[in-house]
Amino acid sequence: MSPAQSALAARAKAAPRHVAVVGATGAVGRELLACLERRDFPLASVRPLASPRSAGQKIAFRGGELTVEALGPDSFQGVDVALFSAGASISRQYAPLAVAAGAVVVDNSSAFRMDPDTPLVVPEVNARALAGDPRVIANPNCVAAIAVMALQPLHARAPVRRVIGATYQAASGAGAAAMAELEASTAAYLAGEAFEPKVLPHPYAFNIFSHNTTVDPDNGYNGEETKVMDEVRKIMGAPDMRLSFTCIRVPVLRAHAMALTVEFDRPVDPDEAREWLAGAPGVVVVDDPAANHFPMPVEASGQDDVLVGRVRRDLSDPEGRTLAMFVCGDQLLKGAALNAVQIAEALL
Amino acid sequence: MSPAQSALAARAKAAPRHVAVVGATGAVGRELLACLERRDFPLASVRPLASPRSAGQKIAFRGGELTVEALGPDSFQGVDVALFSAGASISRQYAPLAVAAGAVVVDNSSAFRMDPDTPLVVPEVNARALAGDPRVIANPNCVAAIAVMALQPLHARAPVRRVIGATYQAASGAGAAAMAELEASTAAYLAGEAFEPKVLPHPYAFNIFSHNTTVDPDNGYNGEETKVMDEVRKIMGAPDMRLSFTCIRVPVLRAHAMALTVEFDRPVDPDEAREWLAGAPGVVVVDDPAANHFPMPVEASGQDDVLVGRVRRDLSDPEGRTLAMFVCGDQLLKGAALNAVQIAEALL
Repeated sequence: MSPAQSALAARAKAAPRHVAVVGATGAVGRELLACLERRDFPLASVRPLASPRSAGQKIAFRGGELTVEALGPDSFQGVDVALFSAGASISRQYAPLAVAAGAVVVDNSSAFRMDPDTPLVVPEVNARALAGDPRVIANPNCVAAIAVMALQPLHARAPVRRVIGATYQAASGAGAAAMAELEASTAAYLAGEAFEPKVLPHPYAFNIFSHNTTVDPDNGYNGEETKVMDEVRKIMGAPDMRLSFTCIRVPVLRAHAMALTVEFDRPVDPDEAREWLAGAPGVVVVDDPAANHFPMPVEASGQDDVLVGRVRRDLSDPEGRTLAMFVCGDQLLKGAALNAVQIAEALL
Repeated sequence: MSPAQSALAARAKAAPRHVAVVGATGAVGRELLACLERRDFPLASVRPLASPRSAGQKIAFRGGELTVEALGPDSFQGVDVALFSAGASISRQYAPLAVAAGAVVVDNSSAFRMDPDTPLVVPEVNARALAGDPRVIANPNCVAAIAVMALQPLHARAPVRRVIGATYQAASGAGAAAMAELEASTAAYLAGEAFEPKVLPHPYAFNIFSHNTTVDPDNGYNGEETKVMDEVRKIMGAPDMRLSFTCIRVPVLRAHAMALTVEFDRPVDPDEAREWLAGAPGVVVVDDPAANHFPMPVEASGQDDVLVGRVRRDLSDPEGRTLAMFVCGDQLLKGAALNAVQIAEALL
């Protein structure tokens, strides 16, 4: 079969669905539409929904054009699958309406992720959590989704006891406006002009800063770090896994990276770990010391796969049970839109 | 006394010295001259030395003008203190000539750092290593110098057993040409133009990458990481301290940052650690969770002090012996030029 014929066959397997995208004009929303388009999701129709001020915008889609509609209580009539990416308060308000209208909701916000009755899913890791016909499925935090892609292939062979992570997070995690602010503030810097940040709390041009979520006064971790740690445990079904993350924003547009220190319950050889990773769907090992070629945002951006490299034995663990590694994945794809569409595909 | 009078009194305490700066036109060399200028180092003369192609350049200095001379075997006649920052091979070739001419050498390269007979010094940490009239003193790797400023005030009260570090390193560590490449490649990106990197091996605009030093095929750590780990142990006089660093280059111009996970031999309270840090010379605690204000390059750049914040108990250590923290310091100042001039001052 030609690729075009294969695609037609794949589409024919499942009945076409009516899909709504809530937050269609945001950074993730645009990628949700792009994923639906290029992955040949069996579509009967696509309804892009956004705030009233975006209503009427045209979006090119599969050779035609979609018109953005204002999100409202009646937006979900006839919708089979609703992909939400418009923030937690919109999800809390509208997801129940979408479910009441008969839709299955895949929600990219944090609204339902830690709800014990809501599955939190990265299909390569815990597709089994989709059993039981759930009506709302939560799509994880972007760092958590990318981290578990690297951790699960290892954890499946040698249980992971502890993870220490330091992240290098892109602008896209704060939305399209943050990406624009990174570019505009950098252009201003290079032109020697002043720039007043409006989207993020700190200057972003050639600067890095601690993630701009509220810091828990009791333990000193910020909201992003807490989400990552809680969600990794939930997705991996490992409530006793010990984690500590430091989440830092770096001036990169759309791919997150992280340095992970991973302690196992027994010594694991780096070559063995690389083999496990190389065999994992959605993971590509980029680990070429001779060429100094390792995962980096410029290569992860626009890629579905999560890149893993710098795999080596942690020299600070005399028992040899700890590996260090460096991971990079597209925040808008595996960290958000791609994973949501993969969840919808798994539900078909 | 007025500040001007204090400065005069300080200068009068030591006899003026004839100082040479090797690599005077580089990123660190320019900062060496700036530190000598603003710190009222007791100067009889300053001789800026560089490669023949830079000879004849004029450098403004204390209201006058210095002329760059080509480095040669006779450059050190009459020199009391020679500050080297022109790479390890220049140091290996010319430091012995400077010493033979009667100068004390403070060397910013890696040439002599791990030589057991050469002191490796951060004055706030191990000024005692300057005893015994050494003729060559090594100035540490920039990450090591900044890291020990945050580690030593803690280690002095509660011995540090293990450090896991992930760095966010600025362009300046690769020299003035790398800083220029970061700006030029970013400008090209924003203009939608192609850019071929010449100084660094990877695209730098809105990208991060593993430090571009050779990776040890035996253990997978790169040269920068190995330097940091070895030098921290040597400066702190802690040969058994266990370290693991991941060194990453980020698109920042001149301040390094690092996420440190620090394990002690006993539980340490974050408030206690902050007190110890706040009392340490050269360290400023920047740790305001309510304002989401923590150390960042835009505030560390141009500052002598090393900024420390995000101090919190590592949630992945159930025994409570581990703290997480975030550190930021100017790579060209405490990471290089300032520390070298401080060493020279300590020798006076």
